[in-house]
Amino acid sequence: MSKTDGFYRKRRDKLYGYLDENSIDFAVIRDTRGRRNSSVRYLTGHPSDAVLLITKGKSFLIPWDINVAEKFACCEEMIPFANFNHDIVNILESLLNLKGIKNIPSPVVEITKEASYPLVKRIKQSFPEYQILCRDNGIDDLLLKHRMIKDSEEINILQTASGITDRIIESIKDMLVKKPGCTELEIALFIESEARKMHAEGTAFESLIAGAKRSYAIHAYPSYKDTVFTGKGIFLIDFGIRYRGYCSDVTIPFFKKPLTSMQKKMLDSVIYTYSRVTEEIAEKKCIKETVRHAKELLEKQGFTMPHALGHGIGLDVHEAPYISAERTDPSMQFGKDMVFTIEPGLYDEHEGGIRLENDFLITEHGTEALTHSGPVEL
Amino acid sequence: MSKTDGFYRKRRDKLYGYLDENSIDFAVIRDTRGRRNSSVRYLTGHPSDAVLLITKGKSFLIPWDINVAEKFACCEEMIPFANFNHDIVNILESLLNLKGIKNIPSPVVEITKEASYPLVKRIKQSFPEYQILCRDNGIDDLLLKHRMIKDSEEINILQTASGITDRIIESIKDMLVKKPGCTELEIALFIESEARKMHAEGTAFESLIAGAKRSYAIHAYPSYKDTVFTGKGIFLIDFGIRYRGYCSDVTIPFFKKPLTSMQKKMLDSVIYTYSRVTEEIAEKKCIKETVRHAKELLEKQGFTMPHALGHGIGLDVHEAPYISAERTDPSMQFGKDMVFTIEPGLYDEHEGGIRLENDFLITEHGTEALTHSGPVEL
Repeated sequence: MSKTDGFYRKRRDKLYGYLDENSIDFAVIRDTRGRRNSSVRYLTGHPSDAVLLITKGKSFLIPWDINVAEKFACCEEMIPFANFNHDIVNILESLLNLKGIKNIPSPVVEITKEASYPLVKRIKQSFPEYQILCRDNGIDDLLLKHRMIKDSEEINILQTASGITDRIIESIKDMLVKKPGCTELEIALFIESEARKMHAEGTAFESLIAGAKRSYAIHAYPSYKDTVFTGKGIFLIDFGIRYRGYCSDVTIPFFKKPLTSMQKKMLDSVIYTYSRVTEEIAEKKCIKETVRHAKELLEKQGFTMPHALGHGIGLDVHEAPYISAERTDPSMQFGKDMVFTIEPGLYDEHEGGIRLENDFLITEHGTEALTHSGPVEL
Repeated sequence: MSKTDGFYRKRRDKLYGYLDENSIDFAVIRDTRGRRNSSVRYLTGHPSDAVLLITKGKSFLIPWDINVAEKFACCEEMIPFANFNHDIVNILESLLNLKGIKNIPSPVVEITKEASYPLVKRIKQSFPEYQILCRDNGIDDLLLKHRMIKDSEEINILQTASGITDRIIESIKDMLVKKPGCTELEIALFIESEARKMHAEGTAFESLIAGAKRSYAIHAYPSYKDTVFTGKGIFLIDFGIRYRGYCSDVTIPFFKKPLTSMQKKMLDSVIYTYSRVTEEIAEKKCIKETVRHAKELLEKQGFTMPHALGHGIGLDVHEAPYISAERTDPSMQFGKDMVFTIEPGLYDEHEGGIRLENDFLITEHGTEALTHSGPVEL
């Protein structure tokens, strides 16, 4: 067993306790096309579609591609999904016959809550003798809570991802100085290329390269075009890389004078808000209070931020802790080993948009900036 | 109203009839992160996150980014999602107060079936006076049926997408002749770049560039690496582009001698099966029968295909008609204006993998190959 396998094993072990305490016989976690659930990778290392079946003390990985699983994943047992005709109902039907699981007359089965209403209804009808759970505050939310506090393996990976990201930020700046007329497309491909050359799996999401004419949207559509990036006004590049599954996420705000008075005010307000907010993040500080303060600072300048202040990052680009006025529980505090972004932004259909975003880790010594994006004058 | 707006309007009109016939007052379609539902784009042209609320004779688009909606979408009315605090429950609460909707004491509301079990449960509890539907064979499946038969606007777009794809296939071949040592990464970026230069929105999915050592996986992981592509054996490039929302999807099979006898047999079997199957596709032919025949041809050679024979393409890379032994209804036939891929493939952990895939349209004159990939010897 490799060192990394030990981390996966430890993460699964934490779930066995949950099953015991809640008298659950089997838990089913699905990571499928259109319904991504990174907890499968978190628990086994498997990087693509699979069903993970967790029983007390033993897990079964049921991958779509057994060849990939055998190369990359770690689990007590692996069975190709094709053996079950790619149907979750067939897995549940075979449950009691699986090697190593003792016969239980009326098992309690928890299914992760991304399962659709019609699917759960169908499962309940197919297995009247099973007790089927699919719920808020169940295994999904427990896993998100576990994943919110990164272990040492995850922090190492995220630090490497941040280092790669920082190097790409610097390279983009160089590129724009050397070739001011480069296109959004060229920048996007440059990021993808640099990331992979530094052994990232790739970008974490489609890079948003929004020149002055397109920066008005929170997420530019299309995300980048074959048109010159640099122009007068305010604009931005939002990108992240994925390294061994883990994401970074940064936004570089650009400006080129002359700015309108409104553009200047937007730029200044975003940078001021970012500085104030990132200074005051600390362990045990209420997250919602931080969001409220950021919104207040922007509102004092007459602005409304149309999105969240930040979000956790990890195997998902957006995960707990959510740092938003709407989604964040009022009791939620910043805590040690959380990794997240802070990203105040402002957008105007006519003036354009501006956003500054970096990734942070809370350690026992305080808040550590993992990435180092900042405003760039062109 | 532009010509394109007319197509959207016509597509929505078809739903108004469904609502009437089924005594449904409101239908709610959600296209959100992690739960993509391209029917929102199909009905309005809106390319990113939104909720679409359909009432009898009038639809409301509730986009996450109102600036993007105002530029790209077409709908009777648009209201920012932020006005509802980004919560579907708030939309349902406001339903009866929305301008232009008459007061209904006990409305029947259908929610698209990707909705999770806990969400539907919460909605049912919040609105005991509403009748909430979330079901198979409801509005989702109707929309997938509508989308399976492309209208003239969609066929035009898909033909343009295929033309771009064909040009990229030829360029890749040229590139591999001129620069035999190029890396998987270089090929992937070249595809992305060519696609965007030809006004595609980008690639339709992460290109799979699997050199001889990595072609054993159905979907290589990672999808491409910074390593030389060409090597002895069998290998493949699977890519697609997205043009005005619509996807192409092709796989180019490559081989470089000397091949092992098993590699040669795999290559020959895939090409033979592809030829036989594509020749026999015709309107009113049973889809499942075609799949059965393909599997039989491969099995006669001692092979098992670990994935579907093909799939519909459109706003989604995989959509109806499904061309698979498992998912396809036995009564389903190929029909006029269907657009789909055929992609027999074989994989072996030691020998590598090979797949040939092209896109097809059924017209009144027969089956038209939209793309023209074929085996390439390097």
